[in-house]
Amino acid sequence: MDTKKVEEQKKEWESSTLEKMLSKAKERKEPFKTLSGLELDRLYTPLEVKDSDYSEQIGFPGDYPFTRGIQPTMYRGRFWTMRQYAGFGSAEDTNKRYKYLLEQGQTGLSVAFDLPTQMGYDSTHSLAAGEVGKVGVAIDSLADMETLFDGIPLDKVSTSMTINSTAAILLSMYMTVAEKQGVETSGIQGTIQNDVLKEYIARGTYIYPPGASMRIITDIFAFCNKNLPKWNMISISGYHMREAGSTAVQEVAFTLADGIAYVQAAIDAGLDVDKFAARLSFFFNVHNHFLEEVAKFRAARRLWARIMKERFGAKNPRSMMLRFHTQTAGCSLTAQQPENNIIRVTVQALAAVLGGTQSLHTNSMDEALALPSDKAVSIALRTQQVIAHESGVASSIDPLGGSYLIENLTDTIEEKAQAYIDQVDKMGGMVRAIEEGYPQREIHNSAYDYQLDVEKEEEIVVGVNRFQMEEAPPENLLRVDPEVGKQQRARVEAMKQKRDNDAVKAALGALEKAAKGEENVVPPILEAVRNYATLGEISDCMRGVFGEYTAKTDV
Amino acid sequence: MDTKKVEEQKKEWESSTLEKMLSKAKERKEPFKTLSGLELDRLYTPLEVKDSDYSEQIGFPGDYPFTRGIQPTMYRGRFWTMRQYAGFGSAEDTNKRYKYLLEQGQTGLSVAFDLPTQMGYDSTHSLAAGEVGKVGVAIDSLADMETLFDGIPLDKVSTSMTINSTAAILLSMYMTVAEKQGVETSGIQGTIQNDVLKEYIARGTYIYPPGASMRIITDIFAFCNKNLPKWNMISISGYHMREAGSTAVQEVAFTLADGIAYVQAAIDAGLDVDKFAARLSFFFNVHNHFLEEVAKFRAARRLWARIMKERFGAKNPRSMMLRFHTQTAGCSLTAQQPENNIIRVTVQALAAVLGGTQSLHTNSMDEALALPSDKAVSIALRTQQVIAHESGVASSIDPLGGSYLIENLTDTIEEKAQAYIDQVDKMGGMVRAIEEGYPQREIHNSAYDYQLDVEKEEEIVVGVNRFQMEEAPPENLLRVDPEVGKQQRARVEAMKQKRDNDAVKAALGALEKAAKGEENVVPPILEAVRNYATLGEISDCMRGVFGEYTAKTDV
Repeated sequence: MDTKKVEEQKKEWESSTLEKMLSKAKERKEPFKTLSGLELDRLYTPLEVKDSDYSEQIGFPGDYPFTRGIQPTMYRGRFWTMRQYAGFGSAEDTNKRYKYLLEQGQTGLSVAFDLPTQMGYDSTHSLAAGEVGKVGVAIDSLADMETLFDGIPLDKVSTSMTINSTAAILLSMYMTVAEKQGVETSGIQGTIQNDVLKEYIARGTYIYPPGASMRIITDIFAFCNKNLPKWNMISISGYHMREAGSTAVQEVAFTLADGIAYVQAAIDAGLDVDKFAARLSFFFNVHNHFLEEVAKFRAARRLWARIMKERFGAKNPRSMMLRFHTQTAGCSLTAQQPENNIIRVTVQALAAVLGGTQSLHTNSMDEALALPSDKAVSIALRTQQVIAHESGVASSIDPLGGSYLIENLTDTIEEKAQAYIDQVDKMGGMVRAIEEGYPQREIHNSAYDYQLDVEKEEEIVVGVNRFQMEEAPPENLLRVDPEVGKQQRARVEAMKQKRDNDAVKAALGALEKAAKGEENVVPPILEAVRNYATLGEISDCMRGVFGEYTAKTDV
Repeated sequence: MDTKKVEEQKKEWESSTLEKMLSKAKERKEPFKTLSGLELDRLYTPLEVKDSDYSEQIGFPGDYPFTRGIQPTMYRGRFWTMRQYAGFGSAEDTNKRYKYLLEQGQTGLSVAFDLPTQMGYDSTHSLAAGEVGKVGVAIDSLADMETLFDGIPLDKVSTSMTINSTAAILLSMYMTVAEKQGVETSGIQGTIQNDVLKEYIARGTYIYPPGASMRIITDIFAFCNKNLPKWNMISISGYHMREAGSTAVQEVAFTLADGIAYVQAAIDAGLDVDKFAARLSFFFNVHNHFLEEVAKFRAARRLWARIMKERFGAKNPRSMMLRFHTQTAGCSLTAQQPENNIIRVTVQALAAVLGGTQSLHTNSMDEALALPSDKAVSIALRTQQVIAHESGVASSIDPLGGSYLIENLTDTIEEKAQAYIDQVDKMGGMVRAIEEGYPQREIHNSAYDYQLDVEKEEEIVVGVNRFQMEEAPPENLLRVDPEVGKQQRARVEAMKQKRDNDAVKAALGALEKAAKGEENVVPPILEAVRNYATLGEISDCMRGVFGEYTAKTDV
């Protein structure tokens, strides 16, 4: 390309064609910004692609720096995993939903747990009242986990579990169910979220202080490393930061900064980076701004590859690959005119696929109103299937690569995320930064700015601050059986009558000893789970050793 | 960019990373194709952008060859016109729907007429039986047109009318309604489809033989040129060819070939190309294959600009600008799982916007089942509003420009469309080609190939040949009042009682004389319309002079 010629042509265009137009009609806004506040130029040309070294910056899929994707054939090989996050009520209710989803063509499972399960309380605990089975399925012991996966062969599916502070317990339950099904546990595939740092930043289901949490996570890494070679031992998550109002840049930056903290902790605990880094996975949001989101995924991939290679000296290319799950933005859904959510989710899902996601959850149209109904869930899954089979975007790799705008935005997001990571480093790393409330504050400010924009109608939300209409009350919403808590409590009590209580006591004693010392906590947790110790009992045992964390409120 | 380095890197990638992957896992298909059968490479890099001369091939929006758009600010200036095609039952029913759409935020009107109106038969004609008000609104005379636009100020909206063989009559009615509203007719804005050539190719609502049709069209051009400076006097349409099963390349090629025929006819009739070409507009389909569709619009724009400049010697840049309306692909909608159509329409609408359309109709989810309900119509409009206000794609011009795949596909579609145009030229132009059944045959073959692919499940249609499910019968469908035909016939009879029948007779006499001679037929049609001559009476008068056309059936 003749850069000089393009530069001259651009000047000519600006001073004649453009100038003539602008003198007649102003533009709608000034400036135009992405949802994250990045300013967007009127036009991107080769002149706006900052670093045009294709070989270094963009390269080839499956090769460092993985800008164009982590596999050399991407979706020509196979589609992303269609994995709908689901869980509500009892293990039996949720088991039915899983079977429905698998029949509809879903290709992976993803478990939503209720809050008591995430916080380490049994359904019988007073703090669990009113929450049992509400935002996810209630799991109190191995008995519930057996029901949850009844009739679902664990050597045939991969399962993602959104579980953090109690991840070791649920993973132990899953392994035990697999064993009981006669499945070789070394072959089970799936993911535990197990990313407690982001819980302190944005999501809130932490139990222990950060230091103890990091120790448990490192124990899980060591355990998985040895016993579960195909299991993703963490899903480092930006999703909830974005839901809390972060920008796309903050989502990338703080997620990768969390990743840095985990990798450093594992290395400090004596693990070899090339032995575990390939089992790290990531979890991002995909929001409305189509172009920004595509660029975000490309930027995150390149930045992580550089961090792993340059900062941690990884040698194995697999250690440098950012593999990620994506979920459409729950916070973008509106209770008003719920069908508009099908439109939003389609645009978002398309961006996730064009960004090269490894798996995808598409939200259901009625999620701003209730737990998703069967019908809404099937439409959400159809969204992925239409994109996969009808839109043609899975036929070529990184089809938007080379777009002047996309490459420019990829560079910009990478650069701005790197600046945040530098700041976190300066503060002494992510654990310190969180304790000082830094990422929390940055996210809070972005959320505030966005809210102001909506109030000033600089951001239009269709059906909410414009194009409103009178609506009939929504129909066919899913209501969780109000009896579910009572039934679940009875189930826990009955289970306790049947188990070997001495074995439970012995296992919990061994766990306490491990927690107090330096022994890995996962094997004694597994032993307790096998003996039907409850999630609450196991968590309480560790609470006794590690204590509980309370967030500072001055954020 | 260092091309040599990229070439070497690509070879290295192919022989190592890619080769290793392919030896483990084959790809899903071989080869991958667009919906139109164009083969898609695995990966596009700068090496695959055939002609990388940015200045000549791509350039700047608002400047020749308009690859990136026809305006220098595009949607930063204002959004595309959101124009939902609508019409059913009586003029009164349709008037209500228009007011509903305008309240919902629609920004332009688009009239669907019933078949008798399109074919030049009054509702009282025996051939109209069962068709009155069915696929559009029934308009028999000026009286109905007055009702249709009652309370809608014609100086405030722009109106598109899907009308061809009877375009001069409906345009005359519209002008007269404007006059009666006290609106200066020289200021009215809108479009008549008026593209009869594609009726012979794909749509079927022709009346007269091709030669006579071309003469009427040329008369309309001359009339509009003199009297309606803001009116689009034709909308040269590929939409229906695509619905009939053409490929994207055929859609571009035959539409522009029709355009060439009209421009040539107007020049032959003595019009100056730079005096009328700026009032030509186009109408395309937007189908499922997201990337192909974006490239298609860019290719069509560049090709038309070159044709106007190089073939017809146009000097005014406005004569070279391909301005187009787009409608999502009705043929892609399924009766099964109608909500899936919201997903399809979203993907398609996004492609239309990324392709730089000037106006857009988004189909309603229930159109494969019935005429769209109010609710379905509002969801369809919301699709455009979510894309406009929430997706961010309207903030920069031609945001996918530069994508290696998009630029490659733009070049390919342009090149293949040019080859078709060369073939049509060789046959002596489009009128000859149509008479020989050439475009009809080419489209027919493509439609057949696609149908085979669906049957062999090489093309997956979600909910149709995969992911089927049992469904409850659809609810809330719009049913046209079965009495509408009877009521409309009574209305025509009553109107005839009140009008000045001598004036009608005189006007029709004048029209007959004009048609037989060389005088422009539009002024006498306007005079007949003003005197409440019916659409059928005017059409019959011209049938008497021009005769009727019957298609050969050996296509």
